[in-house]
Amino acid sequence: MNNLLIDVLDGKKVDRPPVWLMRQAGRYMPEYMEVRRKVTFLELCKNPELAAKVTHQPVDILGVDAAILFSDILIPVEPMGVKLDFDPAPVISNPVRTQKDVDRLTILEPYKDVPFVVETVKLLVKDLNVPLIGFSGAPFTLACYMVEGGGSKNFIEIKRMMHNDYKSFSTLMEKLTISTIKYLQAQIDNGCPVVQIFDTWAGILSPCEYAEMVLPFVNILVDNLKNAHVVYFAKDSATFYKYISNLKCSCIGVDWKIELDEADMQLGTGKFVLQGNMDPVILFTNREKIMNIAKLIVDKGKSLKGHIFNLGHGILPNTPVENVKYLVELIKNGCQ
Amino acid sequence: MNNLLIDVLDGKKVDRPPVWLMRQAGRYMPEYMEVRRKVTFLELCKNPELAAKVTHQPVDILGVDAAILFSDILIPVEPMGVKLDFDPAPVISNPVRTQKDVDRLTILEPYKDVPFVVETVKLLVKDLNVPLIGFSGAPFTLACYMVEGGGSKNFIEIKRMMHNDYKSFSTLMEKLTISTIKYLQAQIDNGCPVVQIFDTWAGILSPCEYAEMVLPFVNILVDNLKNAHVVYFAKDSATFYKYISNLKCSCIGVDWKIELDEADMQLGTGKFVLQGNMDPVILFTNREKIMNIAKLIVDKGKSLKGHIFNLGHGILPNTPVENVKYLVELIKNGCQ
Repeated sequence: MNNLLIDVLDGKKVDRPPVWLMRQAGRYMPEYMEVRRKVTFLELCKNPELAAKVTHQPVDILGVDAAILFSDILIPVEPMGVKLDFDPAPVISNPVRTQKDVDRLTILEPYKDVPFVVETVKLLVKDLNVPLIGFSGAPFTLACYMVEGGGSKNFIEIKRMMHNDYKSFSTLMEKLTISTIKYLQAQIDNGCPVVQIFDTWAGILSPCEYAEMVLPFVNILVDNLKNAHVVYFAKDSATFYKYISNLKCSCIGVDWKIELDEADMQLGTGKFVLQGNMDPVILFTNREKIMNIAKLIVDKGKSLKGHIFNLGHGILPNTPVENVKYLVELIKNGCQ
Repeated sequence: MNNLLIDVLDGKKVDRPPVWLMRQAGRYMPEYMEVRRKVTFLELCKNPELAAKVTHQPVDILGVDAAILFSDILIPVEPMGVKLDFDPAPVISNPVRTQKDVDRLTILEPYKDVPFVVETVKLLVKDLNVPLIGFSGAPFTLACYMVEGGGSKNFIEIKRMMHNDYKSFSTLMEKLTISTIKYLQAQIDNGCPVVQIFDTWAGILSPCEYAEMVLPFVNILVDNLKNAHVVYFAKDSATFYKYISNLKCSCIGVDWKIELDEADMQLGTGKFVLQGNMDPVILFTNREKIMNIAKLIVDKGKSLKGHIFNLGHGILPNTPVENVKYLVELIKNGCQ
């Protein structure tokens, strides 16, 4: 069993940073596309054998130090009462806009509502030789999708709800927080020693909005998870780090918009293990650049409490697989 | 003549911050739409009488303390040798990808290539009773559009050029920097006492990429402009402020992702007048929220060297006009 990821999260000294890559199972990989051709994206997420298979692929093909459950952040919100489809971007045909819309949403009961996720976790932990990372969207990011009805450019609907109807917004956030606690705890209880919370859309807010209306729910979420390390990843949120510094989790995911040492300083020196932070577009350049930038990141990582090498966001479609393999090898060889 | 904007930029003490709003002339305003219905967007930009008319509208209708030349940041790059259209987003059908593509680009000669811009400025300064702000895109933001061939989600092409073919990238940046100096100086020489440089896409980069490959050109640009105040606005770039702090300009535009006092600290306390920073989406909420948030911003502005009230990005289409009017009145009345 390769336990490097857990060692770093436990605060142990290690010889090199563990490496895994957000969206390491995905469209850039031919073996994934082969599985994907036979089923829709939602079918893939809901089929434990296939979901386990694509979760396993990057461990076998790239040799990363962790697997991350293959799923979509919107999977747990569908049974709460929204109509979800992928086109290929997520579309919610009954967006949540009013108190009535919020009231009709139910709390997720993972063993009843998303048994396939629990099943996938069980299948994976049986034979993986690396830790399995569970994950969910953060309450605010899930709320964005539910209120906007999908992705968004300017996030007018969610911000309008936050400011014009805080009661509906906070009730929605409460329901999502409780559901997310249950969802992540089910993943943990079935074998995930680490869970990552993706707050992809936190960065659309002002520091004040984030600190007052979003972070309190992240705090509740993190405080209520037991028996696992928690990684919190809020994209485009470096200006919120002074608030995030009080979060009771093991690790903060960092995007490429800030250097790791600077991020550490703003989060409270040595308080968190940091994960990141190569721009995924660097994988479209060339080996020399990949090596130079990886080296810089690994060097900055040495001054931290602990460092998990990752990208600053998910691998992009059409990323050259050979560059991804090269990067993983590089980190495993100590950037030699 | 209302000279409040210039007074603040000159470092004078004033009773209230001057207010103008990015994209204050635009689709949200019925009077603009009436002009726009008769011509295409490009025709409007190239017609001095009509461009002057829509530049004037927000001064008359909203009562803002400054006018900003109506144009598009891509207007000066078209005569350099790219085929530009709006659909309604900008599309460049011959994107710049190779050294050969860069070599065929010419340097802008504003009096010959965009005489209509000079003419619009001349028409406006004759009868405006507020300062006219000239503007251009920053070299990097213009390069993004030219290399990507329009807007982009992940900016793979421009980053690939930066890392795989720096010679082409830097030659492109040089040509854009020289062209932008000429373009802005022509606006200044014909009557703009202030110019704003929009670096809309700077925020896609890492701090290292920005500091090494982009900022040097912004420095050259700013250092070569004479006889005007320069405002530099780089969106999503709060993590670059320690580098931006050495820029020799009067004012930095700030988006809503960082508080004004925090921005001031990171830019070097009291070094710059700051402009900003209300999230344009707040104009979709309600009067009470608009007042509360405007008050907070104005209060933070009082601790600065100088403060120009503005949004943190352009006014969005469909923004309720009555809320825009309310905001401008509010700032002019000292948030009473």
